[in-house]
Amino acid sequence: MAKKILIIGAVALGTKAATRCKRLNPDTEITLIDQGQFISYGGCGMPFYISSEVDNINALRATSANVVRDPKFFTTVKEIDCVKIRTKAIEINRQEKYVLTENMDTGEKEKLFYDDLVLGMGSRAILPNIKGMNLGNVTTIAGLEDAEKIRKHCESGMKHMAIIGASFTAIEIAVGLAEIWNIPCTLIKRSPRMLPNLVSSTISDMIKNDLREAGIKVISEEDILEFVGDENGNVCEVVTSKHRVKADHVVLAMGVKANSELAEQAGLKCNPKCGVCVNEYLQTSDPHIYAGGDLIAIKNLITEKEMHLPMGSLANRQGRIIGTNIAGGNPQTGMETFPGVVGTWCMKMHKGTVAGTGLNEDMAKKAGFDVMSINMEQLDKAHFYPEKNMMSLEVVVEKKTRRILGMQGYCADGMAVKARIDSMAMMLQFGKPTLHELSIAEVSYSPPLASAMDVFNTAGNVADNIVTGLGEFIKPEEFDKLFAERETNNYIFIDTRAGQAPLEIQKRYPDYWFNIPLETFSERIDTIPQDKNIAFICNSGTRAYECLLKFKKHGRHAVNSSGGMQAMKKRGKKY
Amino acid sequence: MAKKILIIGAVALGTKAATRCKRLNPDTEITLIDQGQFISYGGCGMPFYISSEVDNINALRATSANVVRDPKFFTTVKEIDCVKIRTKAIEINRQEKYVLTENMDTGEKEKLFYDDLVLGMGSRAILPNIKGMNLGNVTTIAGLEDAEKIRKHCESGMKHMAIIGASFTAIEIAVGLAEIWNIPCTLIKRSPRMLPNLVSSTISDMIKNDLREAGIKVISEEDILEFVGDENGNVCEVVTSKHRVKADHVVLAMGVKANSELAEQAGLKCNPKCGVCVNEYLQTSDPHIYAGGDLIAIKNLITEKEMHLPMGSLANRQGRIIGTNIAGGNPQTGMETFPGVVGTWCMKMHKGTVAGTGLNEDMAKKAGFDVMSINMEQLDKAHFYPEKNMMSLEVVVEKKTRRILGMQGYCADGMAVKARIDSMAMMLQFGKPTLHELSIAEVSYSPPLASAMDVFNTAGNVADNIVTGLGEFIKPEEFDKLFAERETNNYIFIDTRAGQAPLEIQKRYPDYWFNIPLETFSERIDTIPQDKNIAFICNSGTRAYECLLKFKKHGRHAVNSSGGMQAMKKRGKKY
Repeated sequence: MAKKILIIGAVALGTKAATRCKRLNPDTEITLIDQGQFISYGGCGMPFYISSEVDNINALRATSANVVRDPKFFTTVKEIDCVKIRTKAIEINRQEKYVLTENMDTGEKEKLFYDDLVLGMGSRAILPNIKGMNLGNVTTIAGLEDAEKIRKHCESGMKHMAIIGASFTAIEIAVGLAEIWNIPCTLIKRSPRMLPNLVSSTISDMIKNDLREAGIKVISEEDILEFVGDENGNVCEVVTSKHRVKADHVVLAMGVKANSELAEQAGLKCNPKCGVCVNEYLQTSDPHIYAGGDLIAIKNLITEKEMHLPMGSLANRQGRIIGTNIAGGNPQTGMETFPGVVGTWCMKMHKGTVAGTGLNEDMAKKAGFDVMSINMEQLDKAHFYPEKNMMSLEVVVEKKTRRILGMQGYCADGMAVKARIDSMAMMLQFGKPTLHELSIAEVSYSPPLASAMDVFNTAGNVADNIVTGLGEFIKPEEFDKLFAERETNNYIFIDTRAGQAPLEIQKRYPDYWFNIPLETFSERIDTIPQDKNIAFICNSGTRAYECLLKFKKHGRHAVNSSGGMQAMKKRGKKY
Repeated sequence: MAKKILIIGAVALGTKAATRCKRLNPDTEITLIDQGQFISYGGCGMPFYISSEVDNINALRATSANVVRDPKFFTTVKEIDCVKIRTKAIEINRQEKYVLTENMDTGEKEKLFYDDLVLGMGSRAILPNIKGMNLGNVTTIAGLEDAEKIRKHCESGMKHMAIIGASFTAIEIAVGLAEIWNIPCTLIKRSPRMLPNLVSSTISDMIKNDLREAGIKVISEEDILEFVGDENGNVCEVVTSKHRVKADHVVLAMGVKANSELAEQAGLKCNPKCGVCVNEYLQTSDPHIYAGGDLIAIKNLITEKEMHLPMGSLANRQGRIIGTNIAGGNPQTGMETFPGVVGTWCMKMHKGTVAGTGLNEDMAKKAGFDVMSINMEQLDKAHFYPEKNMMSLEVVVEKKTRRILGMQGYCADGMAVKARIDSMAMMLQFGKPTLHELSIAEVSYSPPLASAMDVFNTAGNVADNIVTGLGEFIKPEEFDKLFAERETNNYIFIDTRAGQAPLEIQKRYPDYWFNIPLETFSERIDTIPQDKNIAFICNSGTRAYECLLKFKKHGRHAVNSSGGMQAMKKRGKKY
């Protein structure tokens, strides 16, 4: 008799597992159920449908040959034996190996028996408990129905949107609204930083400035008190601890949590914070039940602890592995494994793209590592090549071992920063990279695409210099603070950029800001007062570093603002 | 007494070693000599100066702050003790530890003593022995003087250029001439393929088509017999074994060889084909003599054999390591190492960029591996996202172990293909990646930058299917051959693309070309004749693969053209 496979959830993981299994082993009998109306869609595309960059919602449901992936597509083209939508799993009976399901339209219940079961129920939006939650035009962004509602409202004259939370999706929706629909948008969030578990405060500032330049307002460190409705029962205002924000549409995008209740009830091992526990074969604590995607707790290969990382790309990769394993394994190599993740991501915004992999400084410290996080700026392509952009890269490194734990970046050329972050992701996923390995990493070079000493390698070199103690660096926000407190902290600021005429800023702060270009620095060292604290700055940090070394050779001490004026500019900080 | 360091060669490696050493250990006494007029320039930028994309030649010699790196820059700003240009090393005396030098203008000889010596003499153009070599306007592209000459000729009305050889530089110059100057250009080369040691015949076809679309003529498999001169002693024609090519400028770009004679004469161990031998610390067989850059034989980490890989990026990375080591090592970690290379490169052409890492099929076979090389096509970004390009990726894999030995690619978005190739480069440099590791490689995902199942992962999946034997694929050029021989080989061609109306090509070849879309394939299987050989094709290979599996399930056999019509289009092949 054919092996019976039941798959719960048919968005990314479930459909991938079903089709892969069927291709490898056509003799299996596969039933795919989902509680939604739509299956197999690209949820990460919703912000681009809302913005209208993706014109038709069916594009998110279609193959690259424009065939819509509805149940009929799966039964005929993919030859999946049975596909049921609007069908909810309400109980897993592991002893008798069936799942009790309920048709959401008719209420009809049915027992679906399995030999192997796949759980791909994904995640759902975390909802706050706030007065006015049920007003009209307060939506989540959990599925195509939500995306459709928001897009229709954009088309019919939305005036102000407020987004609660600042997830990737939240930011992408805000950018689309600002860029394409010209609808004012306010992002309201509790944490002071953007993507606090993913980037540093330096890169968070860059994200904020990027959004500000798109016309998006970001409100941080405020609690939502109430959504206020108008006479029609639709939302018209968001009341926070400090503001009243006009909004005729509110999107709740505070992140997601795994839909793990059904698995818990069935006695499968779960991590209460992260989701259903699985082994390397993506089997739950019951070897006949597999799980993947947003539903599971996944091992972080750097911290070696479980985490929740809801990403469509992981669901797809895991779906294929589950598909292989329920088909009986790869015909040549047997069961396949998914050892874990390092946490790699990217997001296009308005002027730039931000990306990262591994741990940021905060997460590394939380995991018990003694780290430094070093940011730097360099052009993404040869400096003599006409097209180029300043790229920010930040390296998180364990001080004692020089092991790299993460890298984050921001650049106007999104693919350029993706190239560097993905390269680091491979080093983190398949090794334990050191700063030296980053310095000699053999990324490809040609002037239209990279520098001979590429920004990727330079990030390693800069971090190496700093960890070695060759020069003391301060972060851009620390420079801001030193400058703001200049009247009391006895600091003066030496600008080492080339320049003949006095810089505008020197005229404004003649007692604090001095220009001593690298080229004439050595001969002018003695003009730098001995009784002052000294901070250097230049365009990107390189020239100031060279001055710092010369200064040190003369027995003097100073600090260098890493990333220089370029980091200031990206953070929207004017001097 | 200060440690005396002498560095021969001051283009990339030498200057990097000198400045790094001085920054780490200001007490060293460094002398830097070079036989040229210009030092520390970005040689890889020459094609872009010739094209005029880089306006001023000084841009190739300047820092990113626009300061020209001349000898004075190195002595004052970088505090190198002595810099001598137009100074040639003519003998290394290892016993007495000096180098005999000769001033190329005055003939004056001088002994320069060293404690540590660095060899960075680089490489020189391989010159053919052809009648007419000394005619006017027959140049190499070995330095800025050559670039200046060619650029001036472009400005003053060059009519036709012929380039002998098809190195990166040759191709880049040809593209610049075609795109910017609108000067007809002919590339003449011996080998049938473009970059024969780097790419497959499939990708070679894509390069040829890319150049053809820029208006560049490529002549392959021909010997140069003679350069013919005009009445002024300038070249006017190139005579090959089959053609006479008009050319009032000829560039010899047949590759380079290491300038290793001086090292050989000094008794340093050399590899006759690849250059000076070094250990992991970049020391030659004499531990007081270091060498790097184009001069050295470098270990290929995949074949574990020595190779010659002349690249500015390697020279820069190696220069820093030599600088560290001659300074006495990194203050915290000691001597630094450069274990070898995998061979990573990229080149922007007219419509697309080609890039690669590791071995191509031919080189892998030469190195004794039993391999398959599998090409595929997929979009570089989410298929529903408006901006996107078809990317070609080719995976070279050892059949038995599924170990990946190389990857090459071509895409209109150069940074997109660089991102994937660099990711593979990291896997190859720091591991021994398998197909499974490629399938689960955690590259970053967001629809404007990648697919959920990214082209990088899909390349692993496709290769996995093929190595496992799930379907038989043929390369695009094999499909061409089957189609060309259709009247005798009993093949028919099933096009599985979606389509209601008969395709144009069916009307042309009604007896050979049939359209059976994937969507209706199963129900029409029995209409496919049993007495014919069958080849499938679709847009990119995916739909045809699914049909292949359905066909197989019915006990039938067919082959699938990998990369489909997209690979045909990129190769300039019309059906």
